Amino acid sequence: MKLHDISMMIHNGMPVYKDKPEKKPHIRRTRTLGDGANESYLGMESHTGTHMDAFYHMLNAGKKMHEMPLEKCMGEAIVLDFTHVRGPITEKELSKKSIGKTAIARNSIILIKTWTKPMKKFDFGFTFLEKTGAAYLAKKGVRAVGIDQLGIERGQPGHETHGILFRKGIAVFEGLELSSIRQGSYFFIGLPLKIKDGDGAPARCVLVEGFGK
Amino acid sequence: MKLHDISMMIHNGMPVYKDKPEKKPHIRRTRTLGDGANESYLGMESHTGTHMDAFYHMLNAGKKMHEMPLEKCMGEAIVLDFTHVRGPITEKELSKKSIGKTAIARNSIILIKTWTKPMKKFDFGFTFLEKTGAAYLAKKGVRAVGIDQLGIERGQPGHETHGILFRKGIAVFEGLELSSIRQGSYFFIGLPLKIKDGDGAPARCVLVEGFGK
Repeated sequence: MKLHDISMMIHNGMPVYKDKPEKKPHIRRTRTLGDGANESYLGMESHTGTHMDAFYHMLNAGKKMHEMPLEKCMGEAIVLDFTHVRGPITEKELSKKSIGKTAIARNSIILIKTWTKPMKKFDFGFTFLEKTGAAYLAKKGVRAVGIDQLGIERGQPGHETHGILFRKGIAVFEGLELSSIRQGSYFFIGLPLKIKDGDGAPARCVLVEGFGK
Repeated sequence: MKLHDISMMIHNGMPVYKDKPEKKPHIRRTRTLGDGANESYLGMESHTGTHMDAFYHMLNAGKKMHEMPLEKCMGEAIVLDFTHVRGPITEKELSKKSIGKTAIARNSIILIKTWTKPMKKFDFGFTFLEKTGAAYLAKKGVRAVGIDQLGIERGQPGHETHGILFRKGIAVFEGLELSSIRQGSYFFIGLPLKIKDGDGAPARCVLVEGFGK
């Protein structure tokens, strides 16, 4: 059994959505060992780095962070390598991948890999899951979808990808760090902070290889 | 296989260490769906609610949050019910428990239950792991220790409990929510945020009952 950490490091200079300065974390030391203990204050957006969206992020009647079922946060997962794609990942791209060992099964967690190196800065032309791709995954009945970009969609009117997934109860993890992970099967565990009424929350996500072995 | 969420809810009015107002979280909505999406800003101390301490919290040369091995964050766990104890949990209390199904094994994760209801406010006379109890667990070679109080020790000069555990590489989780969990065996998964150079970080912690069944 081998653990892979697939979480972005959280720090003040980390990449954030659209590079907006107001989205950068504000972390500062508040006490040092001389005062009794090293302690700090963590200020960050709910969608910083590796995080989970609550359905409430895009649906006012959707479940909030503390209501999201933990069953959506762990399970059999497949990492699909789309590092060759620029732009939208469509139904066609996904269906080409869904064969043999990378077949997309009901209740599985689909993780989309687009980077071959850790993200250094925000990519304004980032690879994303287009609405036909989201509809395809919704039809397959997957449990959750994750991507190594800070958003799962880009520039689609009405946030259609989020809406299609959320209305089917499919969880979304964004900002994964998959650059060193090979296409294949794993067990995914991604645990977000339990923020009351939250629209999203930073999460620590891991992949287990050879689960139970 | 059954999942138990053993994490405190994070909100602005939650209990914090010594009830200090400056330790309360500051969470506020920054965008609403009318502006595109529900989003918020999360401000909190590194040791808020359910969290993991980095060894750096009490040892300047100790591992920082992003360096803490994930292997310390999951494994076979035993919940020990100490709801009958007021004050310190000593070697004597622990050794009385360490028999039969609640025997304390090498590499196990020991979770100390002191509350029978969810914590509503900080208890200044809280039950804690006294230094002889910490030394006993260190000698047993446990992997991690957790408690459902906001601190694992109280008022011991030089934070001896932390020091004894940290110097042996034993991880500490504080602020667990164990009120509905019965004494017995589980699989623990507790994943803290990956804060660069962090002294501690909020975590989402779960217990799995009947793991792999």
